[in-house]
Amino acid sequence: MAKNEKEKFNDFGLGDKSSSDGYRALNKDGTFNITRTNIPFFERLNFFHSLVTMKWSRFFGLIIIGYFIVNLFFATIYSMIGVEHLTGTKGMTPFEQYMEAFFFSAQTITTLGYGRVAPLGLAANIVAAIESMLGLLSFALATGLLYGRFSKPNTKIRYSDKAVIAPYQNINGFMFRLVNPQKNQLLEVEINVSLSVKRNDSDLRNFYNLELERKKVMFFPSMWTIVHPIDKESPMYNLSKKDLLIKDAEFIVMLKAFDESSSLPVYSRTSYKADELFWGEKFIYAAKRENGKLNVDVGLINHTENVDLN
Amino acid sequence: MAKNEKEKFNDFGLGDKSSSDGYRALNKDGTFNITRTNIPFFERLNFFHSLVTMKWSRFFGLIIIGYFIVNLFFATIYSMIGVEHLTGTKGMTPFEQYMEAFFFSAQTITTLGYGRVAPLGLAANIVAAIESMLGLLSFALATGLLYGRFSKPNTKIRYSDKAVIAPYQNINGFMFRLVNPQKNQLLEVEINVSLSVKRNDSDLRNFYNLELERKKVMFFPSMWTIVHPIDKESPMYNLSKKDLLIKDAEFIVMLKAFDESSSLPVYSRTSYKADELFWGEKFIYAAKRENGKLNVDVGLINHTENVDLN
Amino acid sequence: MAKNEKEKFNDFGLGDKSSSDGYRALNKDGTFNITRTNIPFFERLNFFHSLVTMKWSRFFGLIIIGYFIVNLFFATIYSMIGVEHLTGTKGMTPFEQYMEAFFFSAQTITTLGYGRVAPLGLAANIVAAIESMLGLLSFALATGLLYGRFSKPNTKIRYSDKAVIAPYQNINGFMFRLVNPQKNQLLEVEINVSLSVKRNDSDLRNFYNLELERKKVMFFPSMWTIVHPIDKESPMYNLSKKDLLIKDAEFIVMLKAFDESSSLPVYSRTSYKADELFWGEKFIYAAKRENGKLNVDVGLINHTENVDLN
Amino acid sequence: MAKNEKEKFNDFGLGDKSSSDGYRALNKDGTFNITRTNIPFFERLNFFHSLVTMKWSRFFGLIIIGYFIVNLFFATIYSMIGVEHLTGTKGMTPFEQYMEAFFFSAQTITTLGYGRVAPLGLAANIVAAIESMLGLLSFALATGLLYGRFSKPNTKIRYSDKAVIAPYQNINGFMFRLVNPQKNQLLEVEINVSLSVKRNDSDLRNFYNLELERKKVMFFPSMWTIVHPIDKESPMYNLSKKDLLIKDAEFIVMLKAFDESSSLPVYSRTSYKADELFWGEKFIYAAKRENGKLNVDVGLINHTENVDLN
Repeated sequence: MAKNEKEKFNDFGLGDKSSSDGYRALNKDGTFNITRTNIPFFERLNFFHSLVTMKWSRFFGLIIIGYFIVNLFFATIYSMIGVEHLTGTKGMTPFEQYMEAFFFSAQTITTLGYGRVAPLGLAANIVAAIESMLGLLSFALATGLLYGRFSKPNTKIRYSDKAVIAPYQNINGFMFRLVNPQKNQLLEVEINVSLSVKRNDSDLRNFYNLELERKKVMFFPSMWTIVHPIDKESPMYNLSKKDLLIKDAEFIVMLKAFDESSSLPVYSRTSYKADELFWGEKFIYAAKRENGKLNVDVGLINHTENVDLN
Repeated sequence: MAKNEKEKFNDFGLGDKSSSDGYRALNKDGTFNITRTNIPFFERLNFFHSLVTMKWSRFFGLIIIGYFIVNLFFATIYSMIGVEHLTGTKGMTPFEQYMEAFFFSAQTITTLGYGRVAPLGLAANIVAAIESMLGLLSFALATGLLYGRFSKPNTKIRYSDKAVIAPYQNINGFMFRLVNPQKNQLLEVEINVSLSVKRNDSDLRNFYNLELERKKVMFFPSMWTIVHPIDKESPMYNLSKKDLLIKDAEFIVMLKAFDESSSLPVYSRTSYKADELFWGEKFIYAAKRENGKLNVDVGLINHTENVDLN
Repeated sequence: MAKNEKEKFNDFGLGDKSSSDGYRALNKDGTFNITRTNIPFFERLNFFHSLVTMKWSRFFGLIIIGYFIVNLFFATIYSMIGVEHLTGTKGMTPFEQYMEAFFFSAQTITTLGYGRVAPLGLAANIVAAIESMLGLLSFALATGLLYGRFSKPNTKIRYSDKAVIAPYQNINGFMFRLVNPQKNQLLEVEINVSLSVKRNDSDLRNFYNLELERKKVMFFPSMWTIVHPIDKESPMYNLSKKDLLIKDAEFIVMLKAFDESSSLPVYSRTSYKADELFWGEKFIYAAKRENGKLNVDVGLINHTENVDLN
Repeated sequence: MAKNEKEKFNDFGLGDKSSSDGYRALNKDGTFNITRTNIPFFERLNFFHSLVTMKWSRFFGLIIIGYFIVNLFFATIYSMIGVEHLTGTKGMTPFEQYMEAFFFSAQTITTLGYGRVAPLGLAANIVAAIESMLGLLSFALATGLLYGRFSKPNTKIRYSDKAVIAPYQNINGFMFRLVNPQKNQLLEVEINVSLSVKRNDSDLRNFYNLELERKKVMFFPSMWTIVHPIDKESPMYNLSKKDLLIKDAEFIVMLKAFDESSSLPVYSRTSYKADELFWGEKFIYAAKRENGKLNVDVGLINHTENVDLN
């Protein structure tokens, strides 16, 4: 049964075949070290996904540039129609007239419509009617994008930078810890840790599911130390620090939880390589009672002290 | 197996180590008595989450203040450019001119644009084009925030203020009751009760999962009495009222359900301390038939009567 | 085990205690015959839920009336300030002036702002600035409400009006059928049927879970006949038509599915009373092959023919 | 137990009764070959669903046509009221006057409101107030629709065009492969394959669940080859290529996953008919190491090479 489960977990989509020395399947930030090529543009394309996941600075940059370009475009059209079809323009030079057209376009696309300058005649009116409609649709789109950006579950689990091997009961354990730095509550938090090591005789890799002291917690308001006890059943049993480095070990961590703030499930991933694992250190306790509350000092998440191993 | 499950439930993220006398892990409203410090500002920050969960009065207050400040800001800019670049202004005194600029700003940012006052010249036009764009984006944001605020599942389960020990079949039971006061239907309602008590010999705490008469109901249109039968398997077996007070007992309640109105899962939490537990009282029946309907009197949720215990 | 499950299902929040003769727990449309009284107004209140679930006619009615009243309100304020503070008004009589104020208000709250009439002076400008802001917020709210109304999973499962007792293999079965009349696909459809009957010796009711031939289907593109085989294990075994009427039987149906269109889970409920159950009828087949497609005639959902029972 | 599961899977809503020769239950794109007729218009109707799932070209076409028609409608009303009730109109001929009314309508419904033309008098003002309100509501609707269109999980799993029978360990296996061409991560991907074959003696069909080498992967960043080992337990055991063609075999594939980008579950379906199954071919390996990353060449998804079967 245990073997079966390991078998099933084997590979799990990360490719056991070409993962040779020095390869990290999962980056620390949870992204995969996998690229895909030769995807037709249309299949790859996900307009909304890109606009919702890009950085804020880039998102606002795109909006501002788009606003500028669209106004340039319409200003050119109004100029071609002739500014005499815009009432109230006071520009004398061609540049001033183009500027009048430009700002008239801006007043139209935002549906501001001061009316000091207004379209006169069929052509100018048609363009203005189209532009104002376009403005409304663009704005509808921006509303959706802003909501899409904000309403995404915004969970940034913070993992300790390093994992440790520390005493656990009368054996040792593989440990790391994590905290939710934000105000949103995470509930029914489930964690899954697996170990990927190179096979002795080939470039292929084996994947093992690591049994945890506690796989799921109902609440997660505090700091949580994940422990894999290195007992006789553990794939890490009798492996030394050097063995793990030679086998190019990677510990792959996947967390699943329910985010009460967005009412959506959230996932988080990270990994530890053999050289991020410290032997004979233990995490220091980060919580203390204060005014009837338990206070957790998140700044201590990476603090360890030396300890003798069993 | 049972022991295993209790073991797993142990701590569940609430910290078994420093929970000494008089400590309440979970407040009555379901928040945790845990604070986290030393979190970098950027990690802690969740702009949308704050704006969506703050009180309505504060939310509208922020909007109004923001509207006022932004208009002050732009009015100052227009004044610096000079009100002579705004056509149609009729203000004579500097204050009147500033007011004209202020209201022109308000008409621009809301894209109202009466046009009695309108920008003339490059500088004023540029500022107005930027302001109207900013107005649209702010408004897009407000739309998203309002929707985010409203669309959150808004479930306020009402729990009885007190729990009781009352006869149940030929033994006694730990009981409390709950009702959904709102119109939205809750389906597949699951409840979980655990008991946290101080250990005899230390400051540490033990957590026990309490077996319930009924752990899940498919519908929840009425009032529901939760019963933990105190049989020989119960961690409360042979514990007296005084024992629970000495052991600083806390009953931690967690409810999970599907909210048909929002099509989302919802969670609710509360807790009872030993001094909110009343021995030898039972809840009076709150439902009666009326015109072919079952009528539940929610006002009776806390009403109990004295009863002899088994 | 089986008994245990029935036990658990017992009551399921529908109240087994006061359900006497002629009582229907669940209406045909899936609503509950349960009312709750004495709920404080603030707890009961769910503004968004009400506005999102009310009928379209009522929703639009509210918007139109609200628009009218708000404009009356602001028109009165502008009139009190004096129409001389609105430029360009051409009204002579008090009524005409009030009308000018009214339409000026409408042009302001929609951020239309023609500017033929525009505010002049501090008081009128302040009111207009507030009104346009209010307009934007109301409109943001309306956007959210419209989206909330539309994005709700809109699944209307259609159940056969009657249930039947028909031959099934070499015994008989309790049967009804259902279809999804809409274009959205329902996946992983799960159905649950239970029988509620009066106890012989009291007003109380028993609830039994009915075993089904097939409890779950992965796809539901066609019409589905639900069958409970009346074998020796069935709570309906040896019960006659008359028995079910005397016991005031109610068959409670609950369906759960994943709605691919909204990517949300959906639930549907209905019930059959003993007098909606027809003995010795069977549903006629409603599907036939046409041009390489299977064609399901939804209009036949209630069509049955007489049949001899086993 | 295994038999039981097959039994349960039997039919799964696809209609086992009239599926005779040459019938394909599930199209390659995952739609069903099933139509439903005689559905009352009101039950079938799902306005939002239609507007959200139609093609972009059609969606924008509808908006543009709608905008044009609504303006024609209001222009006609304003013309009937008389353009003399619109100030500032400069049209001389009836056509020019109608055009003025048309563009005035466009400026009103978009809440642009230049004000060069503005309503005067009760009738024109009432119509304009109604039109601007209608404009806001339509725009709110468009915002919701655009968001609804964009926020839908947009997952297009790409399946290999053909399935193959290739050696697997010391037997053979039924195989096909799939890839997620988009940037969004799919997690907890579960796959289900079943085989539908005609019965020997009738028009009816049998459905069998196919056991897979791996039914679920936690991550899916790469290409995944699904393998059903044809061992003694397999319903394909001892069936030849010809047998499958005669039995009109259809392999029905259903995939379920969690889409991290939208935080929603997604489903995907496809099918392979017997003539899309190639014997003695195997998929060539599509991944290689490059700069410390694994590179998957999606263009190779259909590439196979000949191989001897066991």
